[in-house]
Amino acid sequence: MKKRILGLDPGIAIVGFGTIVCQSADNWAIAVRNRQIRPWHPSPEPVRLLEFGAIETPAATPDGERLATIYEDLRTLLKESRPDLVAIEKLFFYRMNNTIAVAQARGVLLLALAMEKIPYVEFTPAQVKQALTGHGNAKKSEVQAAVARELNLAVIPQPDDAADALAVALTAWFHSQF
Amino acid sequence: MKKRILGLDPGIAIVGFGTIVCQSADNWAIAVRNRQIRPWHPSPEPVRLLEFGAIETPAATPDGERLATIYEDLRTLLKESRPDLVAIEKLFFYRMNNTIAVAQARGVLLLALAMEKIPYVEFTPAQVKQALTGHGNAKKSEVQAAVARELNLAVIPQPDDAADALAVALTAWFHSQF
Repeated sequence: MKKRILGLDPGIAIVGFGTIVCQSADNWAIAVRNRQIRPWHPSPEPVRLLEFGAIETPAATPDGERLATIYEDLRTLLKESRPDLVAIEKLFFYRMNNTIAVAQARGVLLLALAMEKIPYVEFTPAQVKQALTGHGNAKKSEVQAAVARELNLAVIPQPDDAADALAVALTAWFHSQF
Repeated sequence: MKKRILGLDPGIAIVGFGTIVCQSADNWAIAVRNRQIRPWHPSPEPVRLLEFGAIETPAATPDGERLATIYEDLRTLLKESRPDLVAIEKLFFYRMNNTIAVAQARGVLLLALAMEKIPYVEFTPAQVKQALTGHGNAKKSEVQAAVARELNLAVIPQPDDAADALAVALTAWFHSQF
């Protein structure tokens, strides 16, 4: 059975998102076994890109309005693409100087998920790097190259926030957390 | 003209709130002048307590559900008490070890204000202390005693989060930010 995983990269100025469609872990294992037995059977498509993009909010706007834009845009996105699972990065306060603003936006993202009753999983930046490149202190560019490779894309998705969101979605797929 | 100011003390386990009713700054100034001219005129009631309390969320619940409880309870509170202004404390990342969780809850509070189209003002903890006690490094107990004194209360409102919320509301009144 195919499942949709939506990855989210939280922010107040820009929220990256990206949805992948993948075989659920159980079915993929069966398909691989089938292929070994009947090699003429079309190989199952393990994972592919469905869509990606970003929710942007203007800098000159009050925080409340920016958060409302993020909330409403994400709810629309969730209603339209109905992911089975959402994957979102865990925040650490020492990672950036606008932590409070990003965490406020992340709270609004989690609220939208609760309102649409969509389950979510969380990964640390190190877990995402580990899953995509095999080492937890990979460079951002290595992770993005891995996203393009896994999804058979000729170019890295833009903006960076969308590529980061896809990296988290792929991490959830690798972990088979559903 | 009387105005209602709702103070909010953000948190994920508990959100303190408290509403005060006060003369708007302009009218209060006029009333003071009137009293000087006609001392038999009843003195205007400068500020009084309307209500206080707390929104609590159970610890064993996922963050998304806790944020949804906070969001829905605050929207109900705003619809019922229709404050003219909300006052909310600014967060600093070094002030507590669960900053991310508190900031996520604060994002949801700001979202509810935006959805109900209620303006808000923000104050740092030092501004609140300065406004209520006259010095920016006052103890928590001094601030709470000042809240009870300003509002003519025999006891300090409980829980502490509600007293803290009333302190922020009083700060907005002192600053006459409407």
